Amino acid sequence: MRRIGLEIGYEGTQYAGWQRQQNGLGIQQVLEETLARLFHETVHVMGAGRTDAGVHARGQVAALDLVHPIATDRLLLALNSNLPPDIRIYRVWEAEKTFHPRFQAKRKTYGYRFFTGPVMPPELRRYFAPVRGPLQEEAMRAGLAYLVGEHDFAAFRAAGGQNLSTVRRIDRAELLVDGEGWRIDITGNGFLYNMVRIIAGTAFEVGKGKLPPEAFLRALETGKRSVLGPTAPPQGLMLMKIEYES
Amino acid sequence: MRRIGLEIGYEGTQYAGWQRQQNGLGIQQVLEETLARLFHETVHVMGAGRTDAGVHARGQVAALDLVHPIATDRLLLALNSNLPPDIRIYRVWEAEKTFHPRFQAKRKTYGYRFFTGPVMPPELRRYFAPVRGPLQEEAMRAGLAYLVGEHDFAAFRAAGGQNLSTVRRIDRAELLVDGEGWRIDITGNGFLYNMVRIIAGTAFEVGKGKLPPEAFLRALETGKRSVLGPTAPPQGLMLMKIEYES
Repeated sequence: MRRIGLEIGYEGTQYAGWQRQQNGLGIQQVLEETLARLFHETVHVMGAGRTDAGVHARGQVAALDLVHPIATDRLLLALNSNLPPDIRIYRVWEAEKTFHPRFQAKRKTYGYRFFTGPVMPPELRRYFAPVRGPLQEEAMRAGLAYLVGEHDFAAFRAAGGQNLSTVRRIDRAELLVDGEGWRIDITGNGFLYNMVRIIAGTAFEVGKGKLPPEAFLRALETGKRSVLGPTAPPQGLMLMKIEYES
Repeated sequence: MRRIGLEIGYEGTQYAGWQRQQNGLGIQQVLEETLARLFHETVHVMGAGRTDAGVHARGQVAALDLVHPIATDRLLLALNSNLPPDIRIYRVWEAEKTFHPRFQAKRKTYGYRFFTGPVMPPELRRYFAPVRGPLQEEAMRAGLAYLVGEHDFAAFRAAGGQNLSTVRRIDRAELLVDGEGWRIDITGNGFLYNMVRIIAGTAFEVGKGKLPPEAFLRALETGKRSVLGPTAPPQGLMLMKIEYES
């Protein structure tokens, strides 16, 4: 039995999220069924991050155990020839037997893309959230800056999140131009349920002048979800990168 | 009766092209049917450029005659609320009674986007053509430079093109980085059937070293389709902009 590592990209539009579930198709399930069809083995695919319905990934990492001795480069080709076109494998490698993509992840980076023009270009609609501009960029940058560091992010969590600790370390929270629109990039050692989408939704309110940049600070101090903006829609979110100790 | 101008964007993936036709749904037909439903008038929509099946547009221009007195800003909202999400209206204006978007167009710009990495990211697959890299950029630039000026482009035409004259003026033919991948931008006073896709397909062969940059020159001199590369696939092509005399 070998442990295999995968780096995976997907467009989440048609899926109920990463995880296998009762209601709707998970990306995990598609991978497991494709592997079972190819190798006649029951394979469990462990993902590093549980993206929600409609959320995309460019750098999801997963691991699986396989008996079949297929070479990693041929496994990459076999998977990409048999997966639907909205799921692609970028990299396959022989991992340590103890490799656990979720527990061993040191840092994750999410990007949240949004478009502020009056009419969303059709080819952006699956990957950008529409936000009515103009937005005050400097206020948004000032608000995001409060997030950097180790804080209790209890306020930045959707009901239903089950994490025991709500303390996380954020290394970077930046507003960038992304060719067609804008992107908020956030890197940290971990994220609570819906945390990035709540940060994005709050940044938009700050940009519109409906909330002050200090709303972020107040939420960190009080732990109150109510001082923040709404949860931004899923299609703007992309899991960009997961880092491990090398 | 008023003549209305429209600036239109669409994702062409699901359509048989701009033009109303027997086999499959044209974007023109969707616009005409939406207008008929909204205003109970039989409306003919004249487009400036006949994009093929699977080709996208960001700056398609069209005109139509309407009896209904709806204000242009409300017409924009009414159309965008009733069109499918892969077609969007960017601008609506009261045009001259004599405005003809096709005959009066002075310049058009097409962009052809392509991705040279080993695995196409799923979110780019509808808008970028996969091209196996690495590509020699300088050779591609040198080849494209031969196109600039007024030339007989007879070699750059698919069978089935019906233009009487094959002389066109190209003002710009450039290779650009487009965030995620590459783009070839071409501006000219008019284009023959499949001309941009033949140019792109030839540029890829030049980039791979399978054709010399001078293949473009030879095609202009001889009029022979056979000295050029294959026609690049439709999903990389986007009608970017149409310019009129102001």
